[in-house]
Formats: sequence, C-alpha cells, structure tokens
Amino acid sequence: MKKLHAVCSDLEGVWVPEVWINVAKKTGIEELRFTTRDIKDYDELMRHRIRILKEKSLTLQDIQKVISTIKPLDGALEMIEWLKQHTRFIVVSDTFVEFAGPLLAQLNWPLLFCHSLEVDAEGNIIGYNLRQKDSKRKTVEALKILNYQVIAFGDSYNDVSMLKEADEAILFRPPQNVINDFPELTVMHEYSELKKYLTAHFGI
Amino acid sequence: MKKLHAVCSDLEGVWVPEVWINVAKKTGIEELRFTTRDIKDYDELMRHRIRILKEKSLTLQDIQKVISTIKPLDGALEMIEWLKQHTRFIVVSDTFVEFAGPLLAQLNWPLLFCHSLEVDAEGNIIGYNLRQKDSKRKTVEALKILNYQVIAFGDSYNDVSMLKEADEAILFRPPQNVINDFPELTVMHEYSELKKYLTAHFGI
Repeated sequence: MKKLHAVCSDLEGVWVPEVWINVAKKTGIEELRFTTRDIKDYDELMRHRIRILKEKSLTLQDIQKVISTIKPLDGALEMIEWLKQHTRFIVVSDTFVEFAGPLLAQLNWPLLFCHSLEVDAEGNIIGYNLRQKDSKRKTVEALKILNYQVIAFGDSYNDVSMLKEADEAILFRPPQNVINDFPELTVMHEYSELKKYLTAHFGI
Repeated sequence: MKKLHAVCSDLEGVWVPEVWINVAKKTGIEELRFTTRDIKDYDELMRHRIRILKEKSLTLQDIQKVISTIKPLDGALEMIEWLKQHTRFIVVSDTFVEFAGPLLAQLNWPLLFCHSLEVDAEGNIIGYNLRQKDSKRKTVEALKILNYQVIAFGDSYNDVSMLKEADEAILFRPPQNVINDFPELTVMHEYSELKKYLTAHFGI
C-alpha cells in the first residue's frame, strides 16, 4: 500500500526574502541584518533583535509596515498553488503569526505553523513565545504519526532537524556555509527543478 | 502564555453536501444513499458502496463526474477563507483524495487530511486505503502534541472521537439522531454563529 505524501517547507528564503534583512535595509539598522544563516542559536538571535528594536524604539506596527512591502519570490505563488492541489502542504517557520499575515496574503494563505510574539500595550515587542522547541522537526514527526510520507525543504540551519526527520529532504537555495556543513543533503535552486523532482519521485 | 489555536473540521455536511447522497440521486441508485449518519461502521459502509458500484459497473470517472457537479454550501468558501486567515485550519475527512479534488477546488484548496482509493487499470474502484484507523482523532492529537489548542467541528458519528479529543468541540448541522446520542456536545447550525463563537471564545 502506497503511503500518501505531505510536504513541509520553510517560509523565508524559500518563498519570500528574509524578513529581517529587509527590515534592516528599510530601517537602515545594520544590527538587524543577522538571520539563522549567521547566528545558529535562535534564542540568542531573537534576544538580539528585540534588544535592538527597543534601543531604536521600533514597534510591531513599524515592522509590519516594512513586511507589507516585501514581495514573494518570483514563481512562489504558482508553486504553492501546485503543491496545495497535489499534496498535503504545510509551511513550517520560525517566524511569528504577527509578522506572517502580509506575506501569507500574497501567497493565498497556505497553512503556516510558526510562533507568536509578546507585545505590550504600546505595541512594543517585548518577547516571543516559541510554540515549542524544535517545532519544525516535531511537525514532520506528527505528520509521520498520521502515516504520511513526508518530504521537506528549507534553506538554513534551523531547517536541518526537520530535513533529517523527513523521509525525503532538499536544501532549497541554501547559502554556501549550509551546503558545506551538510554535504549529504540534496541541493536545488529552482521551483521548476523541485517540481520535476517531486513529480518523478513521488508522482506528485 | 496563551496557546495558539488550530481548527479541525469535517468536509461533507459541513462545507459541501454529502457526496454519496448526491451520487445516489444522480445515478438513481438508492443503495448508495447510506452515509456514516446511517451505518456507523465505516468499513461496513465502504464495502457496501464498492459492492454496489461493481454491480452497477460504475467507475471512478463516473463518480468524479457526479462530484464535479456538487456545489459547496452557501457561505462555505467565505467561512473557510476567514478560518485560513485567522487560525490554523485543516479539513479532516473520511473521504478519498480521488473524490475530494473537484470540491477542494471550489473551496480554494484548504488543507485536507483524508484517505485514498484503490483503482484498477479499467478505473473500477476495487478497494480503499484508510490512511490510518481513527484518523480524525489522531489529527487532533497530533496538533495537541504540536502545542496547539484545538477546536473541532463536525456533523456525524465519525466525527465524535475527533470532537471528544479536541479542547473545544461543536456539532455543526448534525442530524437529530446524532444530537440525541451526544446531548453533551454544543450544537450550531450557521457559519455566522460559529464565527461569532470562535471570535468571542478564542479571539479568532
């Protein structure tokens, strides 16, 4: 009996540009440029970001304004529509529901599993709530418990435990340091390549 | 720390009319009218259906043709769009991927967890593959493991274990025998009522 398949993917770097790099560009605050590609410890990275936002008096609304100007990568919407129509597709990200809205709207609202922010009455971001630790890997684990064959793709360090847990894994548009650190993972760069691979290997 | 919420719902009876009742109507085959509302044992029900289809020489394509004429219930698409934009929404059904396509297309492709059919080279439905036993309840369980507060709604006997497993449960447009058998469950009949309830109780 052939198992039904499900696909998990990262959000930033795969479907939309890195949010914090764009926030850094638009606000001119260089210290916000770091991502999980640079600082592997996510909590360290987030505490750094929240500290900088406080120093510069940037509120959630300021960040949301910047995010609403970020456009998805070319072809992202079409590829996501194809996935929604041909498999079970979930975006699994270390972003926050408060940031994701304007991006998801442009991607026709795929299902997103992510975290949430703590915001005070003045709209200052004062902390973040991880929905759970190692949430990407656990999503794959949950889908496997539901008897799906899971295919996962992502671009960065925080995707690796998800990729390792999946039945099939692809590093999609990863930076060179991630490729160097995980030479055992298959690397792809184009949606068309990914589509061809999924069709050939899983009949998706 | 407030948990993020997720919503699981049934498909037939909640967003679209009962598929098999429509197939019975369009084909004039009375024996295909039974649903989980009538026969509680799902395997018994499916074996009955497959036997009848074989007797009447109806193929998967014949059934798909009928399904493509079924329209979603009034307001279903709008309610689903609202859920996709405000929470984590998964349709959990005992239907089959081979049947669901034309219905999901009209509902703008929400994520569906369901089963699959076995079809021979001539297009005859010769069996079905349950993705897993008690798959509705297990989906709720998986979302709880992912640290979501789960709200579930459905209309029939095969939804009850899912409803009982959820943090919050609603019988949506159930027939009277289901209401009678589970008087402890909250009953709602309109999407507007459901929306108001979700907004008031979960800030969705």
